[in-house]
Amino acid sequence: MRVQKAVITAASPGQRSLPLQNIVDRDGQPKTALQLILDEAVAAGIREICIVICPGDAPRYRQAACEHSGHLTFVEQDSPRGYGDALLRAAGFVEDEPFLHLVGDHLYISGNELGCAQQLIQLAQAEDCAVSAVQSTREHQLHLFGTVGGVRVAHSPGLYEITKVIEKPTPTFAEQELVVAGLRSSHYLCLFGLHVLTPTVMELLREQLGQAEQTGQNISLSPALNRLAERERYLAAEIEGKRFNIGVKYGLLMSQLALALSGKDRDDILTQLLELVASHREVATS
Amino acid sequence: MRVQKAVITAASPGQRSLPLQNIVDRDGQPKTALQLILDEAVAAGIREICIVICPGDAPRYRQAACEHSGHLTFVEQDSPRGYGDALLRAAGFVEDEPFLHLVGDHLYISGNELGCAQQLIQLAQAEDCAVSAVQSTREHQLHLFGTVGGVRVAHSPGLYEITKVIEKPTPTFAEQELVVAGLRSSHYLCLFGLHVLTPTVMELLREQLGQAEQTGQNISLSPALNRLAERERYLAAEIEGKRFNIGVKYGLLMSQLALALSGKDRDDILTQLLELVASHREVATS
Repeated sequence: MRVQKAVITAASPGQRSLPLQNIVDRDGQPKTALQLILDEAVAAGIREICIVICPGDAPRYRQAACEHSGHLTFVEQDSPRGYGDALLRAAGFVEDEPFLHLVGDHLYISGNELGCAQQLIQLAQAEDCAVSAVQSTREHQLHLFGTVGGVRVAHSPGLYEITKVIEKPTPTFAEQELVVAGLRSSHYLCLFGLHVLTPTVMELLREQLGQAEQTGQNISLSPALNRLAERERYLAAEIEGKRFNIGVKYGLLMSQLALALSGKDRDDILTQLLELVASHREVATS
Repeated sequence: MRVQKAVITAASPGQRSLPLQNIVDRDGQPKTALQLILDEAVAAGIREICIVICPGDAPRYRQAACEHSGHLTFVEQDSPRGYGDALLRAAGFVEDEPFLHLVGDHLYISGNELGCAQQLIQLAQAEDCAVSAVQSTREHQLHLFGTVGGVRVAHSPGLYEITKVIEKPTPTFAEQELVVAGLRSSHYLCLFGLHVLTPTVMELLREQLGQAEQTGQNISLSPALNRLAERERYLAAEIEGKRFNIGVKYGLLMSQLALALSGKDRDDILTQLLELVASHREVATS
């Protein structure tokens, strides 16, 4: 398997402004969030990137992509029918190739010299199958994430064969169905928003769309991933790094801080932080 | 004098995305930077607001203004001819009334229960003249700001009669011409990006424009303010509060942190900060 294409979903109407936010990267360069996401893909060797957007957003996304704009294809999701439906819009772009999938509201900070997407693609290419990045996550956060059940791959620390994918499970369901041996107690493998997927996923989403058209429901991604695990070998990998959701309250603040604290401006930022806390005290008590 | 109108300049091509940035306010509400700037004006009793923008930006600014969009008039600056020229575009909106002037790349955090703009308008109305907010600023930052010279108004702490306004003076020039008695040594009164101005400023800018058309130069605001001080009583006021320039590197980060640390989410944010610094260490040393 060789992964050469990426799909970024950014079509949720409540989140369309997130990739356009300004952020300073680890090297101290002012960028847009979209540039950082594209940096992640490009550093992993990807050259063709499709972004699924709300109608009309292409010009400002292209502007926000700066030096990466030449690599981009845009596909519009004309009505918001869910995350799975958004991904399916990229089926024509993906064709019969495996692809990296990133979400438009997450940033990644790698814990080693390889990018998070790069670590994932290396694994997928070596194992020749779909791989989703996961993070060991405490039970009380399960309501926020898709969660996977599975078994450890022998002699491969941090690698799991997925048996099940459930969107935002209850703790009770998770305890019965999603416990993974070897994790800390009350911890589960939650999706990271970063996947290498096979084109089979598009087939499965198309089937889901057929059923959903009868019921009028939105199409999410986790059911298709759950069926992918029944159909093919499909792995979960704990990669070295952290993810930051910029769509939650203070998400931009925390991701900007994490980037600054893990980069070349760390000392400057720590100094400014302390000055700010001190000067804030002055204002509050004067 | 009664101040009922405000003009916000946001037409600099390099800064047009700043008012569209997401930020959480002191009450923990997710907003755009534009909403916060408009909150500042509306809390000061302003109901009619003109924003000077780059051509084509009106729809996204109107969207970013949310609940304030009904108060807005947009004027386009068709070619970037400087900050003074941008302000002059609002002359037809201002007519013969005094107006509050704010810049699209600054946020304010008041040190008391009144907003920064509200403090300034109260002063301007009481003194019946133009007033610019200023902040005592150390010499090494003079290259960043318009700076005023002047004399203290008797029995009014923090209030100065302006005699001179110079854009980004050299320390040598400042020492010769802009020393204000009573400030700490090597400190000067630098503009805060918040003014109550009289319509005379528009007249002065129009004269400047006439001269600039012969030389092809950009029109900045400080020369017009300098002439305003010759023409009318014009005050500078140190108001209780801090300004944050979101257009500089890490400006958004620091303004977001300052807002969070001075608001209801202070304790949460301090906890998250500590966790982040700690977890960053883990990643860096593992």
